[in-house]
Amino acid sequence: MDTNSGTVAVHNAHAADELIDRFFRVRGFSEQIAEPLSPEDCLIQSMDDASPIRWHLAHTTWFFETFLLKRDGEYRPFDECFEYLFNSYYNSVGEQYPRGKRGLISRPGLEETLEYRSHVDQAMRSLVDGHDLTDQERLVLEIGIHHEQQHQELMLTDLKHALSCNPLAPVYRDGACEDLDAAVGQSWVDFDPGVVRIGHDGDSFCFDNERPRHRVFLEPFQIADRCVTNREYLEFMEDGGYARPEFWLSLGWATVNEQGWQAPLYWQKDGSRWSQFTLSGRKPIRLDQPVCHVSYFEADAYARWAGCRLATEAEWEHAVCRQLEAPFSASQRGNWSDDLIRSGRCIHPKLSGTESHLNPESRLGEIDRDDAGQPSLADAMGNVWEWTSSHYSAYPGYRAPAGALGEYNGKFMCNVFVLKGGSCATPSGHVRPTYRNFFAPQSRWQFTGIRLARS
Amino acid sequence: MDTNSGTVAVHNAHAADELIDRFFRVRGFSEQIAEPLSPEDCLIQSMDDASPIRWHLAHTTWFFETFLLKRDGEYRPFDECFEYLFNSYYNSVGEQYPRGKRGLISRPGLEETLEYRSHVDQAMRSLVDGHDLTDQERLVLEIGIHHEQQHQELMLTDLKHALSCNPLAPVYRDGACEDLDAAVGQSWVDFDPGVVRIGHDGDSFCFDNERPRHRVFLEPFQIADRCVTNREYLEFMEDGGYARPEFWLSLGWATVNEQGWQAPLYWQKDGSRWSQFTLSGRKPIRLDQPVCHVSYFEADAYARWAGCRLATEAEWEHAVCRQLEAPFSASQRGNWSDDLIRSGRCIHPKLSGTESHLNPESRLGEIDRDDAGQPSLADAMGNVWEWTSSHYSAYPGYRAPAGALGEYNGKFMCNVFVLKGGSCATPSGHVRPTYRNFFAPQSRWQFTGIRLARS
Amino acid sequence: MDTNSGTVAVHNAHAADELIDRFFRVRGFSEQIAEPLSPEDCLIQSMDDASPIRWHLAHTTWFFETFLLKRDGEYRPFDECFEYLFNSYYNSVGEQYPRGKRGLISRPGLEETLEYRSHVDQAMRSLVDGHDLTDQERLVLEIGIHHEQQHQELMLTDLKHALSCNPLAPVYRDGACEDLDAAVGQSWVDFDPGVVRIGHDGDSFCFDNERPRHRVFLEPFQIADRCVTNREYLEFMEDGGYARPEFWLSLGWATVNEQGWQAPLYWQKDGSRWSQFTLSGRKPIRLDQPVCHVSYFEADAYARWAGCRLATEAEWEHAVCRQLEAPFSASQRGNWSDDLIRSGRCIHPKLSGTESHLNPESRLGEIDRDDAGQPSLADAMGNVWEWTSSHYSAYPGYRAPAGALGEYNGKFMCNVFVLKGGSCATPSGHVRPTYRNFFAPQSRWQFTGIRLARS
Amino acid sequence: MDTNSGTVAVHNAHAADELIDRFFRVRGFSEQIAEPLSPEDCLIQSMDDASPIRWHLAHTTWFFETFLLKRDGEYRPFDECFEYLFNSYYNSVGEQYPRGKRGLISRPGLEETLEYRSHVDQAMRSLVDGHDLTDQERLVLEIGIHHEQQHQELMLTDLKHALSCNPLAPVYRDGACEDLDAAVGQSWVDFDPGVVRIGHDGDSFCFDNERPRHRVFLEPFQIADRCVTNREYLEFMEDGGYARPEFWLSLGWATVNEQGWQAPLYWQKDGSRWSQFTLSGRKPIRLDQPVCHVSYFEADAYARWAGCRLATEAEWEHAVCRQLEAPFSASQRGNWSDDLIRSGRCIHPKLSGTESHLNPESRLGEIDRDDAGQPSLADAMGNVWEWTSSHYSAYPGYRAPAGALGEYNGKFMCNVFVLKGGSCATPSGHVRPTYRNFFAPQSRWQFTGIRLARS
Repeated sequence: MDTNSGTVAVHNAHAADELIDRFFRVRGFSEQIAEPLSPEDCLIQSMDDASPIRWHLAHTTWFFETFLLKRDGEYRPFDECFEYLFNSYYNSVGEQYPRGKRGLISRPGLEETLEYRSHVDQAMRSLVDGHDLTDQERLVLEIGIHHEQQHQELMLTDLKHALSCNPLAPVYRDGACEDLDAAVGQSWVDFDPGVVRIGHDGDSFCFDNERPRHRVFLEPFQIADRCVTNREYLEFMEDGGYARPEFWLSLGWATVNEQGWQAPLYWQKDGSRWSQFTLSGRKPIRLDQPVCHVSYFEADAYARWAGCRLATEAEWEHAVCRQLEAPFSASQRGNWSDDLIRSGRCIHPKLSGTESHLNPESRLGEIDRDDAGQPSLADAMGNVWEWTSSHYSAYPGYRAPAGALGEYNGKFMCNVFVLKGGSCATPSGHVRPTYRNFFAPQSRWQFTGIRLARS
Repeated sequence: MDTNSGTVAVHNAHAADELIDRFFRVRGFSEQIAEPLSPEDCLIQSMDDASPIRWHLAHTTWFFETFLLKRDGEYRPFDECFEYLFNSYYNSVGEQYPRGKRGLISRPGLEETLEYRSHVDQAMRSLVDGHDLTDQERLVLEIGIHHEQQHQELMLTDLKHALSCNPLAPVYRDGACEDLDAAVGQSWVDFDPGVVRIGHDGDSFCFDNERPRHRVFLEPFQIADRCVTNREYLEFMEDGGYARPEFWLSLGWATVNEQGWQAPLYWQKDGSRWSQFTLSGRKPIRLDQPVCHVSYFEADAYARWAGCRLATEAEWEHAVCRQLEAPFSASQRGNWSDDLIRSGRCIHPKLSGTESHLNPESRLGEIDRDDAGQPSLADAMGNVWEWTSSHYSAYPGYRAPAGALGEYNGKFMCNVFVLKGGSCATPSGHVRPTYRNFFAPQSRWQFTGIRLARS
Repeated sequence: MDTNSGTVAVHNAHAADELIDRFFRVRGFSEQIAEPLSPEDCLIQSMDDASPIRWHLAHTTWFFETFLLKRDGEYRPFDECFEYLFNSYYNSVGEQYPRGKRGLISRPGLEETLEYRSHVDQAMRSLVDGHDLTDQERLVLEIGIHHEQQHQELMLTDLKHALSCNPLAPVYRDGACEDLDAAVGQSWVDFDPGVVRIGHDGDSFCFDNERPRHRVFLEPFQIADRCVTNREYLEFMEDGGYARPEFWLSLGWATVNEQGWQAPLYWQKDGSRWSQFTLSGRKPIRLDQPVCHVSYFEADAYARWAGCRLATEAEWEHAVCRQLEAPFSASQRGNWSDDLIRSGRCIHPKLSGTESHLNPESRLGEIDRDDAGQPSLADAMGNVWEWTSSHYSAYPGYRAPAGALGEYNGKFMCNVFVLKGGSCATPSGHVRPTYRNFFAPQSRWQFTGIRLARS
Repeated sequence: MDTNSGTVAVHNAHAADELIDRFFRVRGFSEQIAEPLSPEDCLIQSMDDASPIRWHLAHTTWFFETFLLKRDGEYRPFDECFEYLFNSYYNSVGEQYPRGKRGLISRPGLEETLEYRSHVDQAMRSLVDGHDLTDQERLVLEIGIHHEQQHQELMLTDLKHALSCNPLAPVYRDGACEDLDAAVGQSWVDFDPGVVRIGHDGDSFCFDNERPRHRVFLEPFQIADRCVTNREYLEFMEDGGYARPEFWLSLGWATVNEQGWQAPLYWQKDGSRWSQFTLSGRKPIRLDQPVCHVSYFEADAYARWAGCRLATEAEWEHAVCRQLEAPFSASQRGNWSDDLIRSGRCIHPKLSGTESHLNPESRLGEIDRDDAGQPSLADAMGNVWEWTSSHYSAYPGYRAPAGALGEYNGKFMCNVFVLKGGSCATPSGHVRPTYRNFFAPQSRWQFTGIRLARS
């Protein structure tokens, strides 16, 4: 495996056993997500950006079939037409069924799609039982697992958008939405100027776009120790935020007016009270929750209104990494310490346990401080995706892998902005500080929020 | 009940028993249509003009609930929100869920929708058991039955369109498509000039737009004794029909170029052979079938290419009515005699019997002639809807009924053309010579065909 | 000249001298219209439906060049590229420069366009001096003259629309807008049922679509003796006319909401007072003027609100023709008698004399009545184009002429409605009762108004 | 003047005399550009992104009127309505006439617009004669001059686009297009890693977005010593460049297919030969000219095809600045040395002298090398705008000025990419290495080209 040759890097391939175990666990979790849904729920596509649950279930399966199983001469495809039907955007593989029409494909239905999954899972079992996986196979398997985890988050966000179109406000999973104690006030964390390194290091898995690790010069900056809350965002709204062009990017102002935006996505005003649509139905706004489902335009306008700005990607990543290495006690690291990333704020327990975790949460209690008196960054991972001011661009020395998997990331480096940190809907084990998520500045259907910075 | 006062007319109300019997038979038939379909099949909406099967099942139910049951103080609605959700276009009733988004409503799903139907059917049973229906109730019940029959045809055409978007070419019901003997040559039926009457007469049910019966002067004309066949239409295509502006209306030519039309809807060329998507999957073109799924633009262009024109609505209706009264022997009347209208070319036997009836059929054998040597009009009812050159306009003295039912017909009298005769998908008992169907000139997803006329 | 052969009919061709005289008079009038305008005024195109003045000046010239001069071997075209550039919609002639981009052609500019006109006029002089015109040439010349007159009206309406986009409200020609005495109340004129003839008769010029004269049966009806006034239309507006769906066609209601219509085109409310943009700048609404610049949708909605309807084309034409033949004294015929058509309400005197004629006028004084006590129809010609309820369709036996001129009328018979009578902007000698103007139901930029009818 | 307070910086304000002199020279040059044009040429607007010449003449005048003269109590505006009519995008000033409709405003025409210019110029003369300008006035005057220079370039590019819509291919100014000797082969210039500074330094004028000067870390890179030529770009085209998705960004590939791009803007293939529309009419492609009128998408795809990439903004600026400070002899600096920037490649001589300078030029002759053997960067300024891979974002510490002028730059920092170096159409004195131009990635109507880089 030679990263110089342009293939995606897995410097230290996991043992096949661990990988296969993880494969089946992750595959099973996709079906767990779909479990409370009717065949109809799994079919609807509410906008071009979103896809039906049924399509996600099939496409993630297609990934393993196309990039692993079909390379094996003995594999018998479930249905030859699926290569076309469930290809998302891989031009190297061939033509694609039009993205905006995924909701029109009633067959295969949910049941047959689950059979397709089972067919592929069995073939995967035969593959790994049949021979030792090659390095390339292990790499593709690893990518496929992470690919499926990405789609698990999309399943939840796409479903939320789709159900929100129904005036009956359907419930995906019940969940209490108790109001918590007030959030603590916001503090600033300071950073001196200097050359820092960002991007993924070492042998563990990452996507190609997180490499190569490289040097960046940061001028001095401050970053907020927590995200902006609904309470704070409401102040912006009540100060005429959506009606005052001076806070907005030109394209943002045009969007506000074309779309008639008056509040974050899913918010609705009933009399004098705001509520929001959630995966547990319509619920009152909780004032100390982080504001969520805002576009880049709104995040940027809020920051300008507050006399601040958004952090750059490099600032964000450096701030989080410094903290991870800082001498906090475990309890002092806020609720996103290494352990918590691995076990706590993950989606498994949420779905099987307390369903209110389908929403982001607010930081509680006291501010943690390190020895130098600097506060810790709370909720920086696994709560809301945090918009950065950085356009999604290639790192110096980046080269897309050869072949179809080279279409995974590089070709999207245009007119999208980087988001960091992962959200409540991101699966466990799928967040890391170097992760680069990216969406168009008008996107609002992901769990996206705001953390302030300033120079 | 006073037709002069502008309300819809049922001059000779059916006995309540017959009506109620018919109600349950027609209601049951809607469910029969849906029976081979999966929940997903019932949800998809492939264009704004079409609706999901599930929506048709709910909306036809909504009609009885809204216009009959809710007038009764004791009725408990199944779900209050359905008034909004399943209102099609009745501004008098209230706001409507956006038409183009009917495919996004996954709940109520198919199962709950069938419960809704059952709930309403039971309430209808209570209603008729509880008291003698008033004249107004009987009228609304009659309209509701015909309304449901209209939607039964739409269920088939909308489903055909939706399934056609799936590259897997799904089969709704299997059906053989044997090629028949060649169609007989086309002959002309002659008509002298004079004042004739058109529009509905007598006490039997009709829609408001078929009244009042009135006088029209017809200049001499001839009408073809059968519809244009695929074989004939292919000649037009091979003569460059779709590439020669001289045959087309200006709007038609624009549409041909914008849409890239090269053939009727659902046709596809594989090598040198044409096939068509049908409710039984993709099938070869049968040359002697009537050409079907053509727009007004195509019908008009074909007629001009053939040196002819389309008939006006009055010509068509007069020609068919003269024949119905003509001294043909039963066998001579072609295959659309009074008896056949009632029993033969209906949809019940088609669905439960030979499924190939989901396509139009060609006339077989010899030309029937009356005593004066005039040929009979074949297949004029229940085969393909025949485009007329007449814009859909109010008859002299027409007045829309008061109230919500006044929105049934009158408000659509703009930019649509009249079609006559019914198609293979029209339910039995729902065709009559005075029936006025109407679609926009670019519409192709109904079973629409061409009959020539000339002056 | 054989009308049966499908060519356009001039049964009694005018003497060449009269024709040539008229040619030069009409040509000169086009330039008179443009005379007060700057080169920039002549270039602007404010919507696809409208064209720049400069384009009208060139296209009407192109007509004579293409259909007369180029048939003559010796003619040297002014610029070969103009054949493409100034072709409006004649597919038989060749490709056309895109209609919506006519405002982008800065060269030839106004000056060069006038040279083009002069070049063609001189060639026309040579043509008629060189030989006796053939029948076909005289026919094309006659059509070309009427064609140019049609464009003269469009020059005024397109210019009005274009200037209205300028917040400076530019003045084309000054004109007083004094308020007149109140209009007289509206009366009804009665008609018995029976077969009547409509369509052009005799040898004088008409367009192909006015033929053949044919029989129509009219059920009894009444028609208003004058058009609806601004005062009356304001009552409709104040009664919530634009906010009540029950008055509107379904497409009309959609248009009202999409376009945000609240009043006729060019109306604007400043505080509590309505003004309208005119070719003489912005002016207060004159209450007793006929309402103008309303769409078919608005005309139809107004009529329904008033408990009436619009007349059909046949009713309108029959009513006007009966009056023309009625034993009114010249003074009793209202202000549109045969003489007035020829001399009074024409555009020449308006432009050179009282400019307020660039607006329609109200009927003054007493109602004229014939011997039977029936009132006369006032202002039926040369005031506002009156929407009829009739879709623009071919008359029985109509056949478009062969060749390019066959594209003149027939191919537009779709989704447009017939207007009758001519407007204040229609040139003298270009109105007659059989004239069939046609526009899409949403069109408002012509001088279009409303006359009521009822059964 | 305190840059810390957020106002635009002019650290060393020019003496008022020099400034005023320059004001009148620059003002005069705008009129020189318009001099060969007809009133019609000055009116046309061929797309939303472009504006009519007449609008540019008025808007640049509006700038001085709005931001300088109206602050003075005695000034009498030329026309009060112009504040609205010629406001481009300053929400702080008020509403704006819709951008896409600037071509519909025929009045004021060209003549009146020139009177408007004269009126404002006289008022400016009175202003400067009346009192010593304050610092703020001098700053606004300086910005206004640069603002007008920006519009001078747009006048040429917008005009080129507008004239290109005319099938007559009009000539703005005649110009020979001789083919030159072949361009020299391309060489690479090397750069070591390290912290560099970019952004404007010192007291001379710059726009707010060029500040603050700040530190950036550059990993090692190479940059091409000249731009890509038409000959090289044709190789890409002939290698299927426009048909192979693997070279394109996802949005770029979508654009190629939607727009049907097959070549740079203005190129046209006649038989086997390519020509291009220029301001001197249609001309054959000159193979050794830099390729021009390519979008970011095309620049990026070409670079990927060539196994390279585009430079980042920081790389480009650093490379050019290093060279400017390098010990080249004047002749060795290529043709863009300091002197040349000031005098040679400017627009004045081009317009009044050799008109072929309305196109970019190729580098001739030998490669210059410095003492270390590194080649010089040829044509880096004043030839074609060079796309960088950098999204247009705020520099660290950037703060938009207060008030309306704060809308000048900052609000456009979204979905546009930085271009460096200036083009043949950029006025003399308006290029500098720190200048940040920005356009959307699909834009092609500017004189935009490609310089390769690699890691």
